[in-house]
Amino acid sequence: MDKAKTNGCSLDPASVNPRTTTIYPKPFDAPLQGRAKRTLGDPLGLKQFGVNLVTLAPGAWSSQRHWHHEEDEFIFVLEGQVTLVTDQGEEVLKPGLAAGFPAGKADGHHLINRSKKPVTYLEVGTRAADEVAEYSDIDLVARKEDGRFMFTCKNGEPYK
Amino acid sequence: MDKAKTNGCSLDPASVNPRTTTIYPKPFDAPLQGRAKRTLGDPLGLKQFGVNLVTLAPGAWSSQRHWHHEEDEFIFVLEGQVTLVTDQGEEVLKPGLAAGFPAGKADGHHLINRSKKPVTYLEVGTRAADEVAEYSDIDLVARKEDGRFMFTCKNGEPYK
Repeated sequence: MDKAKTNGCSLDPASVNPRTTTIYPKPFDAPLQGRAKRTLGDPLGLKQFGVNLVTLAPGAWSSQRHWHHEEDEFIFVLEGQVTLVTDQGEEVLKPGLAAGFPAGKADGHHLINRSKKPVTYLEVGTRAADEVAEYSDIDLVARKEDGRFMFTCKNGEPYK
Repeated sequence: MDKAKTNGCSLDPASVNPRTTTIYPKPFDAPLQGRAKRTLGDPLGLKQFGVNLVTLAPGAWSSQRHWHHEEDEFIFVLEGQVTLVTDQGEEVLKPGLAAGFPAGKADGHHLINRSKKPVTYLEVGTRAADEVAEYSDIDLVARKEDGRFMFTCKNGEPYK
């Protein structure tokens, strides 16, 4: 049971239970151990974009490296230092720095906490009903239809 | 000339020139003196939602109190204390607290810095091509058509 209280229009993220699970099939879920997401947009009634407050323990990844066909993404670092990995290489992002990943830009990204302290950042992503996410480094494609995700290999066969 | 540098996918907000103007007609622009917005989403190539880093000097307002027909809005307080005003009254938001304003919820909101120190927060809003914003406390309606705003009185006559 989620304890989120909206108190009208406001929300204390500390009142939201963190989610530590992922829908990635094994073994692609392993690097995400140590990731905790607090959903902020949903308890506030927002539907057009999602907002999460994310904490990565040392060593944890935000996701597998990916890019979205339909959805813009944005992140803003609040605490700690996190490494952004894209086709251009690696860059360390400190608190107060932002990054953005426009829909359709075929440059996979993810965040890795290579530091010894937890990292906290805000992430915002558009909510498209239908979506394709392509993964840069692994044989996986995610397809969202009517809001539900399914995974396939890059040749279109179901991931087993 | 905007100095924003994206360096691939990342952005230092300090490299973005703050915007201190507003499109409100006089005298409704006056309370916004002391508001500075740094646009983060646009220089990162995001189109589906806007992201601004906003600073309010003591006494400054975020906007006239309003609600949107089509666009979700979200804010997250980074520094200082800001007062959220809605139909429910006033609430002081501290760093780390969030607020959200779903599209179509007819409860006008704005933020006022009633403290003696600057306030900084992130704001996120969907980009709808067509939009109506209704103002709670003044005789003003904003209509956006194909991305351009115009203001009318509540009876539909042009604002003079």
